[in-house]
Amino acid sequence: MPPGQECVVAYQGEPGAYSEIASRRFFPRASRLIPCETFDLVFQRAQREEANFGVIPIENSLAGSIHQNYDLLLRHRLTIIGELKLRILHHLIANPGVGLSQVRRIFSHPQALMQCRRNTARLGRLEIIPTYDTAGSVKKIKEEKILDGAAIASDLAARLYGMTILRQNLQDNFANFTRFLLLAKGRRKVPDANKTSIVFSIQNVPGALFRSMSVFALRDIDLYKIESRPLHGKPWEYLFYVDFAGSLEDRRCKRALAHLRELAGYLKILGSYPRDDSDTDPQESGEN
Amino acid sequence: MPPGQECVVAYQGEPGAYSEIASRRFFPRASRLIPCETFDLVFQRAQREEANFGVIPIENSLAGSIHQNYDLLLRHRLTIIGELKLRILHHLIANPGVGLSQVRRIFSHPQALMQCRRNTARLGRLEIIPTYDTAGSVKKIKEEKILDGAAIASDLAARLYGMTILRQNLQDNFANFTRFLLLAKGRRKVPDANKTSIVFSIQNVPGALFRSMSVFALRDIDLYKIESRPLHGKPWEYLFYVDFAGSLEDRRCKRALAHLRELAGYLKILGSYPRDDSDTDPQESGEN
Repeated sequence: MPPGQECVVAYQGEPGAYSEIASRRFFPRASRLIPCETFDLVFQRAQREEANFGVIPIENSLAGSIHQNYDLLLRHRLTIIGELKLRILHHLIANPGVGLSQVRRIFSHPQALMQCRRNTARLGRLEIIPTYDTAGSVKKIKEEKILDGAAIASDLAARLYGMTILRQNLQDNFANFTRFLLLAKGRRKVPDANKTSIVFSIQNVPGALFRSMSVFALRDIDLYKIESRPLHGKPWEYLFYVDFAGSLEDRRCKRALAHLRELAGYLKILGSYPRDDSDTDPQESGEN
Repeated sequence: MPPGQECVVAYQGEPGAYSEIASRRFFPRASRLIPCETFDLVFQRAQREEANFGVIPIENSLAGSIHQNYDLLLRHRLTIIGELKLRILHHLIANPGVGLSQVRRIFSHPQALMQCRRNTARLGRLEIIPTYDTAGSVKKIKEEKILDGAAIASDLAARLYGMTILRQNLQDNFANFTRFLLLAKGRRKVPDANKTSIVFSIQNVPGALFRSMSVFALRDIDLYKIESRPLHGKPWEYLFYVDFAGSLEDRRCKRALAHLRELAGYLKILGSYPRDDSDTDPQESGEN
């Protein structure tokens, strides 16, 4: 972002959401962060240039790919210009002065509650109360002055609302990562891009998928991700999500995509961007 | 199931859950259905033979694959012996005598609330209250005699609790299917099996994935699904989920798997079972 220019970032969730943490990692000095109620609104704000950038989760290591956001990528004219892998760390958060022994109820999004089920059970017999989202449950126990309750959410949510972390890292499984994408309007060249994401469709999968893969294999292009998704209502037609090594500026990749166009019914290039290979970092890898 | 033998089926969720509908489609005359709080418990009950069968969702057309259940399939010694594609139809359900004009609050699981967001907004300004699950929210408004509230859940949940459906098919998108798997302990031959599911790992994806695919392509074996999943903490090692046409009894498939064993670091055969190709049925396909 050139100095002096405003940097406005839209993300889904309440302030303190994991998507806000991802947005702040992308832009530590963002001039404005816009929380949006839905993913749809994140895309709309970036499309209408009410935000310079949108940040969305695209897959989680426990829950899988977020097809809804792939669908939105197909419907909008936004480009992926970056990615970030974020380790999801859930903490037990309460109002200042509240101790663990006072907690009778735990509030959070059902997915976070599920991811902390075993560790929560060890805290004793507590009432589990589902809410709309993790950060929103911190806001709730603060605003409603709930002193016998705690929320499960991010450390950012604890800090933003001035709350206390009673127990760090409540999640049962440490290998919980979400990959976020950074989106912007229009086509643009991204410096150091070395990874490209595409979506294409083919009919009658058997030989066709193998031939589609050959356009990469025959050119020694590494694949980072491949996922098929059946198109309901269109029997035998499949969408494929593929991430591969290299950028659209590389001649080899350009040729592979030209070759793929001969085979695919539909092909959309989502963008080329620098790969986040941070889980090769020993600090980040391994279970705890 | 031989006549006279008990048929006990475990599924995750409250009575009236979509998993119960799937269980009843598999076994219209099941002698007992056991609702379980978690997926884990479904596997445990089938493993310990407290249930003859377990029923789990494995992928949804909007939300994607349920990695957690793939993980549980890897950890347990259960075999997939059947599959079923269920169209997810969400209804607006209230206590008998309550009319739409009296409804001020809507209770359901966040995912169901999200899938009905646009249609719910058309009903007027209503308070949206997240709950643990869809069928559980019907139970809640019944037991707590909530007369200004409605729940979003299945028609089975409405029937089981003796409630009224105020509005059918509240979901915004009709192409919402969940694929369920039927699990049983031990290896067994399933009559009419024509689809097989496997999980395998390979290192260093590029050429290796292409070679893995070739064991099927070179034998003209159709693929129904392929999905890569990065193994966090093990950079460059991937798990692949593959569903292919044919059964373990076919010599061609046996040879393909023997060939795949030469290439894969790890290979687990999850089972061969009859494919549910019901979305080729014109009644079931297409948007509404």
